[in-house]
Amino acid sequence: MGYEVAPLSRLVEQFERLPGIGRKTAQRLALFVLDMPEGEAEAFAKAVLDARENIHHCRVCCNLTDGELCPVCRNPARNKSIICVVEDPRDVIAFEKTREFTAVYHVLHGCISPMDGIEPEQLKIKELLRRISDGGVDEVIMATNPTVEGEATAMYIARLIKPLGVKCTRLAYGIPVGGDLVYADEVTLKRAIDGRSEL
Amino acid sequence: MGYEVAPLSRLVEQFERLPGIGRKTAQRLALFVLDMPEGEAEAFAKAVLDARENIHHCRVCCNLTDGELCPVCRNPARNKSIICVVEDPRDVIAFEKTREFTAVYHVLHGCISPMDGIEPEQLKIKELLRRISDGGVDEVIMATNPTVEGEATAMYIARLIKPLGVKCTRLAYGIPVGGDLVYADEVTLKRAIDGRSEL
Repeated sequence: MGYEVAPLSRLVEQFERLPGIGRKTAQRLALFVLDMPEGEAEAFAKAVLDARENIHHCRVCCNLTDGELCPVCRNPARNKSIICVVEDPRDVIAFEKTREFTAVYHVLHGCISPMDGIEPEQLKIKELLRRISDGGVDEVIMATNPTVEGEATAMYIARLIKPLGVKCTRLAYGIPVGGDLVYADEVTLKRAIDGRSEL
Repeated sequence: MGYEVAPLSRLVEQFERLPGIGRKTAQRLALFVLDMPEGEAEAFAKAVLDARENIHHCRVCCNLTDGELCPVCRNPARNKSIICVVEDPRDVIAFEKTREFTAVYHVLHGCISPMDGIEPEQLKIKELLRRISDGGVDEVIMATNPTVEGEATAMYIARLIKPLGVKCTRLAYGIPVGGDLVYADEVTLKRAIDGRSEL
């Protein structure tokens, strides 16, 4: 800020640390918080502290939860014999939105990326292997992101899983539903051709 | 969220209340906060509470400050005889960035906008008039936004100030420096022609 008011500058700096928030947006958010009705900014701060205190990883699938198990693992109606492996808790949210997926998840919390210093040991891979060795698992669907790192992570995990005698699959690649072919990149189109099915 | 973890949903909702933050960004920010190193999320929450507790309006110019006076009003080097009237604390930051403006400010905290239910009484106009009646003011520069509401606010305040025998001016309109004439709208161009000066 051009002129310094310490508590305000500190708040702006805190907002600026958040991903995708630049200096101007941070200023706007800080001033908005200052202008909030009595109690609301306090509720905001409390939500931050509460979430930090009460959210941790599900004992089974490593997704975020406030209980011992996450709502998916807790649900007796879910099919525990199929595990969908994703990189991020947000991926679980995306799958749950389809309202079609009835199996369970395993959240890796990242993907193998030597460039960013992320090694397999930092991901929840051994937790996945332990889950499989515990038995009752028929199939593992690799649903890491369709990026170089996501692919490499899927391949790495598949190599570890196959000796355990469990089926290992990968999400289908292709053109997005509702998309326009003109905007599809050539790699996606190639994959869509390779994966074509009979009508 | 597709699946419910109460402390996380609450945090996402809190982020979603901020201006310009949609559901997906709110999710991203909430998960980022959960992933922050020990102590940093707590520092974030503390900055919110601190700012709310310690920031209030400057007794003289109504800008935001943590003291009785804001840094500008406190500064003995500033020319107190010229007051620049702005709508928002962020406008002060913008003026201060020029490093050329040596007078003082008055922050209205909004502009007259009957459509949004904002009446003159809700702005810091009487504080401005009191400041002028206290004496020592030679000029008031109206620097409200170049919008219909900003203009109306400037005209309204100018009518109140003129009887007090104080010079009342308005920021110049024209083409922005470094801009391209092609992209200037017709109203701005018309104002730039009207306000042309001799070379």
